[in-house]
Amino acid sequence: MTEGSLIFPPAIVLSHTQMGENIGSAARAMKNFGLGELILIAPKCGWPNDRAQMLASGAADIIEAAQVFDTTEAALAPYSLVLATTARGRDVVKEIYTPQAAARHLRATAKAGARTAILFGNERAGLTNEEMSLADGVITIPTADFWSLNLAQAVLVTAYEWLKSADATPATRIRATVAVPATRHELTGLFEHLERELDAAEFLFPPAKRETMVRNIRAMIMRSRLSDQEVRTIRGMIVALVRNKYRGKQNKNGDQDG
Amino acid sequence: MTEGSLIFPPAIVLSHTQMGENIGSAARAMKNFGLGELILIAPKCGWPNDRAQMLASGAADIIEAAQVFDTTEAALAPYSLVLATTARGRDVVKEIYTPQAAARHLRATAKAGARTAILFGNERAGLTNEEMSLADGVITIPTADFWSLNLAQAVLVTAYEWLKSADATPATRIRATVAVPATRHELTGLFEHLERELDAAEFLFPPAKRETMVRNIRAMIMRSRLSDQEVRTIRGMIVALVRNKYRGKQNKNGDQDG
Repeated sequence: MTEGSLIFPPAIVLSHTQMGENIGSAARAMKNFGLGELILIAPKCGWPNDRAQMLASGAADIIEAAQVFDTTEAALAPYSLVLATTARGRDVVKEIYTPQAAARHLRATAKAGARTAILFGNERAGLTNEEMSLADGVITIPTADFWSLNLAQAVLVTAYEWLKSADATPATRIRATVAVPATRHELTGLFEHLERELDAAEFLFPPAKRETMVRNIRAMIMRSRLSDQEVRTIRGMIVALVRNKYRGKQNKNGDQDG
Repeated sequence: MTEGSLIFPPAIVLSHTQMGENIGSAARAMKNFGLGELILIAPKCGWPNDRAQMLASGAADIIEAAQVFDTTEAALAPYSLVLATTARGRDVVKEIYTPQAAARHLRATAKAGARTAILFGNERAGLTNEEMSLADGVITIPTADFWSLNLAQAVLVTAYEWLKSADATPATRIRATVAVPATRHELTGLFEHLERELDAAEFLFPPAKRETMVRNIRAMIMRSRLSDQEVRTIRGMIVALVRNKYRGKQNKNGDQDG
């Protein structure tokens, strides 16, 4: 979100919403993912609305700043790109976006300096055909067969994809703040220590297979991406195990090898 | 979801949940995205729970089939891969996944025939360090600064990514069931018709620039991916406009060209 201050995130436009709870939950979802502009078209639940304020919890600022319009035309007037969400197909030929593709399109448009909006219909009836005709395209959220999201869930998914479209978090990572990954030198020290002891234990046997066995063991250890501390811990374990073995030998004078 | 019947979707495991509402909303989120296995570890809200049943609405089957365990160890016993969700960094070195990467990893593991689970902590305290130590990796959902999702929202995002990881919906598409895209022949007919009339109107002028102008107009029209019906409509519009122009000439005998 380094560019957050430079572009307008999309407005969330809720049309003819019936339940204040849904507006409050939608505001909370927005806040979680960095959206702030809430537009209401003729809310059926009445406005201002106590239930909306209660459900918004930490997103009261979004509820307070919400703008209310009588008509969809007036509400959508400032926006250059409007995508309408719909659960089912409509008899209208418009580009249909996945939430992810929609987020990319919205962000590209916002980066060009334009204001954008995502339009959500009434809980029961969805968007009217006239409202659909005012949208540049349609977002359909994939769900399991015969299911559809409620209003706040749909806002959550589109808002999540909006944040994700700018998020530079790598797909997987190891948290590096609490543990320094081991250096190659430290790993080599571990490998040589371990192999020395395994040789001594005649584990790496027969000699013809030694190289392959060593390579597989090293690969297995490398995959776990040890920290320096963990390398020290493992070396300590090896020292401890070996020491115990010799002690066992001394005590019992038995033959543990092989 | 063509492979849905062949693999186990991940179980959702909720640990020490305080509010029945959150379990109900989580079940609803699961149902929306094709998950069905709900596991509860020592729910603090008591179980069975009326609020959970109310909030689940259409997902009552998931609530009824939920399994309850006293300990995290017992709850996680059947699973080969367990990913724990956490809002903040922990002092534990584990692979950290985005929800999307986690879904891919879970699906790949499930495809190999293994059972998988996603673990969610208590609403206030999150997961204990001991619970974290039982997980193979960590999922962190990206949010705006200083924000974190509530339990049901977190379940929704991970469940959404699970469905998405198998969803073959193209990023964008035009709904083709209601409108047949125009053939190349129909488009060519439109282009030639339009250009003939534009030539007649001396719009494509001067001749040196005609080729470029025609190319740009054709590209502009092609971008809108017209249906056959829309091509006919536009040709009708051209005919109508041209007819009106000649009529205007006849009536006023004026010079509208140029």
